[in-house]
Amino acid sequence: MLNSEGIIFAADIDKKENLLGTIRSVSPYIEAIKIGNLVLLEHGLEIIKIIKDNTDKPLLIDIKFMDIQYIAERIVTKILSHGGDGIMVSGVVGGDVISACKKIMSKKMLFVFTQFTHMSGLISDEMADEYIDLAITLECNGVQVPATFPKRISNVRKSVGKELIIISCGIGAQGAKIGSAIAAGANYEIIGRSIYNPIAPSQSPAEAAESAKNKIRKVLLSRENCALPASTTPESPLNSKSGISHSYWIERTVNCY
Amino acid sequence: MLNSEGIIFAADIDKKENLLGTIRSVSPYIEAIKIGNLVLLEHGLEIIKIIKDNTDKPLLIDIKFMDIQYIAERIVTKILSHGGDGIMVSGVVGGDVISACKKIMSKKMLFVFTQFTHMSGLISDEMADEYIDLAITLECNGVQVPATFPKRISNVRKSVGKELIIISCGIGAQGAKIGSAIAAGANYEIIGRSIYNPIAPSQSPAEAAESAKNKIRKVLLSRENCALPASTTPESPLNSKSGISHSYWIERTVNCY
Repeated sequence: MLNSEGIIFAADIDKKENLLGTIRSVSPYIEAIKIGNLVLLEHGLEIIKIIKDNTDKPLLIDIKFMDIQYIAERIVTKILSHGGDGIMVSGVVGGDVISACKKIMSKKMLFVFTQFTHMSGLISDEMADEYIDLAITLECNGVQVPATFPKRISNVRKSVGKELIIISCGIGAQGAKIGSAIAAGANYEIIGRSIYNPIAPSQSPAEAAESAKNKIRKVLLSRENCALPASTTPESPLNSKSGISHSYWIERTVNCY
Repeated sequence: MLNSEGIIFAADIDKKENLLGTIRSVSPYIEAIKIGNLVLLEHGLEIIKIIKDNTDKPLLIDIKFMDIQYIAERIVTKILSHGGDGIMVSGVVGGDVISACKKIMSKKMLFVFTQFTHMSGLISDEMADEYIDLAITLECNGVQVPATFPKRISNVRKSVGKELIIISCGIGAQGAKIGSAIAAGANYEIIGRSIYNPIAPSQSPAEAAESAKNKIRKVLLSRENCALPASTTPESPLNSKSGISHSYWIERTVNCY
């Protein structure tokens, strides 16, 4: 479902009208939507179907649970039954829980959260490397790597090659500049507040999303040694290993790290 | 709110009727109720008030989020506004997020999750010790320590003395015997499936909860050197440091580790 580069919109908006309206207005400029605990706790899992009715973009459920396999399996099953297109799990839960999620997710997207964007988070690079190894071994689609540590993104990219999609949060309000994570080797930048609550007061979320997309496009175009690989056609998805479908936006500048 | 020993009922029941009926029937035998992602995702935060209307026992929201401070603060504020009596946060999020939660929680209960009950969880004793240090420094009410590693409970108890309440999950279906965590030094055993889905087919959840309470009572009575400290009166709550109120069941055998 995610085979290119661009923006995953972190729709951390609790009021339903605002949430859905913003999603509708920004959808032309983004590649996927991510909802997390804030929205899920406010509305329950039913919000998944409601969001899906308001956009054609894939919806990633950023649950990052810290639960045992028995609970994780029940939650993942529920997410899928409500129409979620993917989930993000905490790497720290370990291989058994991630593997159990993978079995249920089948060809749906499974991402592994590796490290926090904030300085005081207690996950070291070495610990995160262990989660990344698990993500590869268990054939997950990708990993989250914080945009607030761009060197980490480039190191992880060097380490995993094209094995994994890298999605990066911490863009905008948390300090990392729009485009910086993709410049460092990420596939997607997860952007929330900078879109749904733009710094420029006169800017709408749609305008902020369009502006962010243009910034990312410039970064992609300026990447050195950029070439369109043969594999970026709809018939031949980039992530053949994960078997994910190829039904969304394809940017000509895919895969240029 | 939690000043003694006994059972925290892990009400991981997704169907509302069954959830509320079970809570009503087991409440006489338990000291608190814990709900986590399964129930919260099914019903949203509104379920907190509904549960509170069905029991007089305190309700712990086992959210264990892996979010940044900005999101954590918004979630904790919501939990309190819905009537939650306490939360459990993941220690791995680090001091800034836990401290921010503490500020919002004020005198409400704040517990720190330290380690997984399953073997493949990727949190070592050393990492968990760091979270426990944070819990003490930030004047949290207690820590979760897995009942599946009883030696760990006794070591943590030796280390923290009476500074922290220890709550232990992993009892029953996950392998640890009822009473074993309290025997090792925990204050509360978090019991879920063994109560809401008793092994004995003829046993009701209430009967299973009563049976569990009796087993724990026996463990408490058999503790060596057991004596009722002067501080276990309603006027002088055990956890004076946390300033929590003392409005619930007091077991004469409190504090006998």
